[in-house]
This record gives sequence, C-alpha cells and structure tokens, in this order.
Amino acid sequence: MPQINRDRLIGDLRKLATFGKHGTGVHRPSLSPQDIESRRWLVGRMREAGLDAQIDGLGTVFGRSANDGPVLLIGSHTDTQPRGGWLDGAMGVIYGLEVARALAEDPSTRHLAVDVASWIDEEGAFGSCVGSRWFCGTVDQAYLDSLENSDGQSFNDALAAAGLADRPRAALEEGRYHAYLEAHIEQGGTLEAAGNRIGVVTGIVGLRNFTVRFKGTRNHAGTTPMPMRRDAVTALVEFAHAVNRRFPALVGPRTVWTMGRILVEPNAPSVVPGEASVNLQFRDTDAAVLAALEAEARALVEAADSSGPCSVSIEPSAVPQAPTHMAPPLQEHIARAAERHAPGKWVRMPSGAGHDAMVLVARMPAAMLFVPSIGGISHDIAEDTGEDDLALGCQVMADAAASILQEARKPL
Amino acid sequence: MPQINRDRLIGDLRKLATFGKHGTGVHRPSLSPQDIESRRWLVGRMREAGLDAQIDGLGTVFGRSANDGPVLLIGSHTDTQPRGGWLDGAMGVIYGLEVARALAEDPSTRHLAVDVASWIDEEGAFGSCVGSRWFCGTVDQAYLDSLENSDGQSFNDALAAAGLADRPRAALEEGRYHAYLEAHIEQGGTLEAAGNRIGVVTGIVGLRNFTVRFKGTRNHAGTTPMPMRRDAVTALVEFAHAVNRRFPALVGPRTVWTMGRILVEPNAPSVVPGEASVNLQFRDTDAAVLAALEAEARALVEAADSSGPCSVSIEPSAVPQAPTHMAPPLQEHIARAAERHAPGKWVRMPSGAGHDAMVLVARMPAAMLFVPSIGGISHDIAEDTGEDDLALGCQVMADAAASILQEARKPL
Repeated sequence: MPQINRDRLIGDLRKLATFGKHGTGVHRPSLSPQDIESRRWLVGRMREAGLDAQIDGLGTVFGRSANDGPVLLIGSHTDTQPRGGWLDGAMGVIYGLEVARALAEDPSTRHLAVDVASWIDEEGAFGSCVGSRWFCGTVDQAYLDSLENSDGQSFNDALAAAGLADRPRAALEEGRYHAYLEAHIEQGGTLEAAGNRIGVVTGIVGLRNFTVRFKGTRNHAGTTPMPMRRDAVTALVEFAHAVNRRFPALVGPRTVWTMGRILVEPNAPSVVPGEASVNLQFRDTDAAVLAALEAEARALVEAADSSGPCSVSIEPSAVPQAPTHMAPPLQEHIARAAERHAPGKWVRMPSGAGHDAMVLVARMPAAMLFVPSIGGISHDIAEDTGEDDLALGCQVMADAAASILQEARKPL
Repeated sequence: MPQINRDRLIGDLRKLATFGKHGTGVHRPSLSPQDIESRRWLVGRMREAGLDAQIDGLGTVFGRSANDGPVLLIGSHTDTQPRGGWLDGAMGVIYGLEVARALAEDPSTRHLAVDVASWIDEEGAFGSCVGSRWFCGTVDQAYLDSLENSDGQSFNDALAAAGLADRPRAALEEGRYHAYLEAHIEQGGTLEAAGNRIGVVTGIVGLRNFTVRFKGTRNHAGTTPMPMRRDAVTALVEFAHAVNRRFPALVGPRTVWTMGRILVEPNAPSVVPGEASVNLQFRDTDAAVLAALEAEARALVEAADSSGPCSVSIEPSAVPQAPTHMAPPLQEHIARAAERHAPGKWVRMPSGAGHDAMVLVARMPAAMLFVPSIGGISHDIAEDTGEDDLALGCQVMADAAASILQEARKPL
C-alpha cells in the first residue's frame, strides 16, 4: 500500500496557511490577491507532483493525471471564510495532492490515475460551490453573471482583475471519472467527544439560502415622529424574531437555521434606515423539513409585507441544495482503511456542512471522510486539528484511493 | 438693512454641493478627501469676503472678522451624513458667509463683526459635534484620541492623513462673542405642511446614544446544533424586539428612538455570528424621559446578559446631550426679521435634531432659525429646499444679525 509523507503533507498545509495568514487562521476569500497567489503556488506543487495543472478561467486549480484507466478525482477548496480557519477546505486539497504523490511513488500504485481539484468559491464569497457547480454543468453563464461579493464586486470583474477572464474553464470530461473523494475537517465536535479519529460520511444535509429585504424610507432620526417612520431595521428585527419563534415547531432534532448576515443602509446612528436585508439559511437531511421552513419563511414575509409599513421581499440567495447521499461502496473502502489504521476509532456520520462533494454526486459516485476538529471549532481562526489526526486521515484516504482504483481496474 | 445677494448665495451652495456629489445629494464624511477639498474652497471664499480664515487642527474652518466690538458667531457644519443631502449643515455655513458679506457691503453695517465657522464632524463620522465641542472646551484630548470612524480609522490618523495634525486649533476667545446664530433646514415636514417659511427655534431635544454589544461564539452554521449556539445576532434581535415593545410605555408624544446601525462579525451567511452590536439612540425635550429610557435600556441589557447565552453590554457611544433652550432675546430678533419678510408665515418650534448650537449654548447665548424641508426629507440625497426659501432664510438671518449686533453696541 502507498505511504503518505507526513512531513511533506504538514509542510504543504503550513505553507498554504501563510497565504492570507490572519492570526492563527487565514483570510483568503475567493479571487482575493492572496487567494490567487496561493493558487499559483498550488499549481507549482501539482506540477512537481507530475500533474498537468493550471488555474482555470473561474479560478479553480485543476491538476490532471497523465495515467490511463479509470480516474479518481480528489478535491476540496482553498478559498476560506472571512478570517476563517487554516484547514477548512485546504486540508482536502492537500490530501489530494499528497495522495497523488504517494500513489506515484509506490511501484504497486504508480499506474493509477488521480486528478486533484481546488474548486473556486466553495465558501460563497460570490456564490457557493461555484467551481464544482460549473465543472458539473449545473450552473450556467447567467448564474456567474449574477454573482457579486459583499464589497459589490462582480464575479466577472474579480476574474478580470485576477487576469483569469480569458482562460479555458475546467469541465467534466465524460467517461473519465470513476469516483470523487473529498476529505474535510468535521467542523463539529462529535468525533473528538467520542474519541473517534475518522468519520465516514453517509450523506450531506440539504441547504436553502434566502435574502429577505426590507424597504422603508430613509429619514432623520431626530425629526421623524415614530408613527410616520418606515424603519427597515425595525421591520427586520420583527421578522427575525418571528422566525426564531415559529421555526422550532417545524424542525427535526438536527435542523439548524442561521441569520448570519445583516446589511443596513446607510447604517448610521442618526438615520432612520431606509433599507436592510438579512440572510436566512436552513439545513436538514429531510427535504420535507426544508420545504416546510421555506413555506413558513415565505408566509412571514407576506404577512410583514402586507401589514407594513415597510415592503418586504424574499428571494433565494444561492442555489438550493437537496440532501445528498454518499455512495455505499466508496464508504466501504474508506471504512476498511479507517479500521486498518484506527481500529474501532471511526464512525459513520452525516455531514451538517455543505461540501463540493454534494455537487459532484450529481455526476459520479462520491464519498467523504472527516477528521476531528479540536473543540468542534470551525469558521474561526481557532479552528485546528492535531498533526497525528491530519496524517492519519491522509493515510486512510491514500489507502482508500488505491483500493478504489485497483478494484475499478479489475476485469469483471 | 443689509441685502443678501441671492445669486451669490445659491451659487456658493451649488458649488459646495459639487464636493462629494452623490446623485442629487452629497457624500462628504468628515476628513474624507472630498471634505478636505471643500474646506480649502471654503477658506478661499471666506478670505475673499475679508475674513481671516483657515482650516484648524481638527478640520474646522474658522473665519475671523477684523472688526472691533462685540462679535456675532455664525456657524454650522459642512460634513455630511453618508450619501446625505446637499443642505444639511452646508446651508448654515454659507448663510454665515453670505451674512458676513452682506453686512460688509452695507455702509450702515460694515463696522459690525461676524465670525463664521464650519465645525468639523457634526454628523458623527468619528464623534459628534467634535469641532464645536472642542471650541467650547467641553471635550478633551482623551476624547479625541478615542474616536474612530466605521472603517476603523482613528480621528488622529485621519487628521494626519489630511495634513492637519500639527495646525493650531480654534478655541473660544473669552469675551469676544456676543452670541451664536445657526440656520438649518428643518429636516422634518411641519413648516411645509403648515405653509410656514421660517421656524424660530425655541430649544433642542436632548439626545443619548449607546452601543449595545453582543458577544457569543462564532461557529459553523451547518455543524453547530441549535441548543449549543451562542448566536450574537439572535441575541441582538431579541434585545431590539424588547426595546420596541417596552419603550412606548415610557415616552412622551415627541420622543423618538432609533437603532440605525448594526455591525455583525463576520457577517457571512454560513457562520453563526460571534459578535454583533446595535446603536440605540433616543431623543426628547424632557430630561426625565431620557433618564427613564436609559434605565429601561440598561435593565434590558442586564436581563439579556444574565439569561444568556450571549454576554451583553451597553456603553454610551457619544457624549450625552441634555435638552437645551435658545436665548429668548435672540429669538425675538429672528422673529421680528421673519415677520418683516414673511408676515404670518413663521412659527416658534423645538428642534428634534441636534445641532452645534446645542454645544455653543454652554458658552454664549444662542439661537437658530429653520427653513422648510421639501417633503420633510433629510439625511437622504432627496433632501431639498426651494430657492425662494433659501434666499428668504438668509435675508431673515442677515436682518437678525444686524439688529443683534446693533443692539449690542448701544450704550446702556
């Protein structure tokens, strides 16, 4: 079986974390200068590993194996949340790179073909899973044209600023791929709490994202009597309060909902705000729960809009994501490798977070493995995973990749 | 009596509105490049009017008369709200300039002394009424050192960037001033609604500003179960809802309260927000009402903090402003001038908005006049006043200035 190189793996992870370093974490939003710089470095590392690599016309880094036969695609993302952690996404990409290297260095596996991808904008600075969606053909140019980040910069302008606008875009080559694998930190605390070191992912929760907009009248905060106000923040507060009061009756035990982003215009202490918006996101493994929450959100918007004084509207702010399931045969390969390297210390579990794997599953069998997050912390600069766990996870992935590809080549 | 020059007045107002022009309005925050540029222009116009003018070490433009005798100080501010109106503050400064010119051009008034000021940062990009407070000696260097704008730039850094850090600062010269006058747009709709053209201001509401901060734990919006969350936005929403539910029982008929500014960290759809803050401001002419609202706000903060899961704190975000009263003899001068130029079409009224005059009143008798705001709109690019009203207001102010100074020179 191929052996991963622990020092090389950790070294590449630490190096990648220097691009956009922010305290103990990383601030590397998609297509930011530091993101582009990190992608150039990644292309270089992929080429050193023998892959035919480049940054594509959307920012995705794609490294192609020259080997024949069924190809295993391994990917994740190297963009980060604002002031986020160093491993979220980055670990899965570097695992792919290290697995490709480890397989190439072992005489028994060097004929196997592994492609490696760092999909652009998984984290949603502009859209969400933009690179993997484009690769799989589930979004079109009109979708790309509609994207902008919170600074108001369009995705197209950001591509042009990065010098990528005219490059070819990686797209799925029919018949090339046998399967997709993605490794990720758990981003929750269940592995650590139970003393487990590997999670074999069974499926990924579905996700819906909406922007709810409140339009009132901007006016002076001293001279506008309360009864005459159309205050967008007051409308937002009452809507958000109603969501938190009504959702608990509709949800399952693992449902989560979040209002993580609020924008107010002009956002000044002495101005009655004329416009405000809040992002409402919810996740569950049950599509019926997602549908019920969406219906409730829309009913609350309609009620607020018709009772006034502000006008209120709701629209999806990202492509909705249905609950997805990981391929059982691929799960078995990961489970066997986990049992080999961490006997009794692995578990099957759903993913509460979205990942590029949920996009890829539309076009090929896919599976994921998780490693523990210390304290369950993620989307924060305090996010971390022990180096032993980082190395173990990569070795499990290398074993699984080798056995998956070896099985795929067996004559029927 | 001196005659103002309508074309020169309107021309200067229109010219000033070109600095930081934003649609039909102006975006000219204190010490922004466009603000500094406008101040340089204003110094030039003051010097052409015979005033000894400069930008001082805080950004205030101060023009000093060379005449002897009791001095009338006329001022307002040329900084604006973000994407605000063209007349808010600017009108009062240009009135001062035009009154100084009109008095200097009339043989019967050319011996009278008028100083003109554009106080820095009335609108609160950094603090609030920063220039007038410093001039009056009601704030100290430690206060200035504490100020920063919403971009996180300190007031001191902004002064250094504008090249002003080492300039002398205008400060009140004891014994020099007889009175302070300030003209302003009403910023509400009562003058227009009643067909009045001049408001003689009787007093200014008191004002208290607080920042309420919510500190939770930043985490992943997919993997953090609802019962484990410490969501700063949820805490903010419930607090703001409680304010809007409890305040109505404590207020008078003219009380206003506003939560116009919300900041969320990191403000991303897929992150449980770890930090949030909201500005809570309230205004009334009755100090007892202000005290009751502050006590209620503090009680709500304590209740939220002790019930958890987030920690909640409250602190003043600006110097509190007590209700203030305009000097009755000065009101009489303005009222007589108003009756002369707009017989029966003026009214005495309180100001719901704060103005530099409420600072100056601590050091000298002060009075204000209002002109109508079309549609009652202000703090918005749609803010406007008809040119006839602009000219009338300035002529009333010139008459009042002349009669105030003439009376001040009469032997007892």
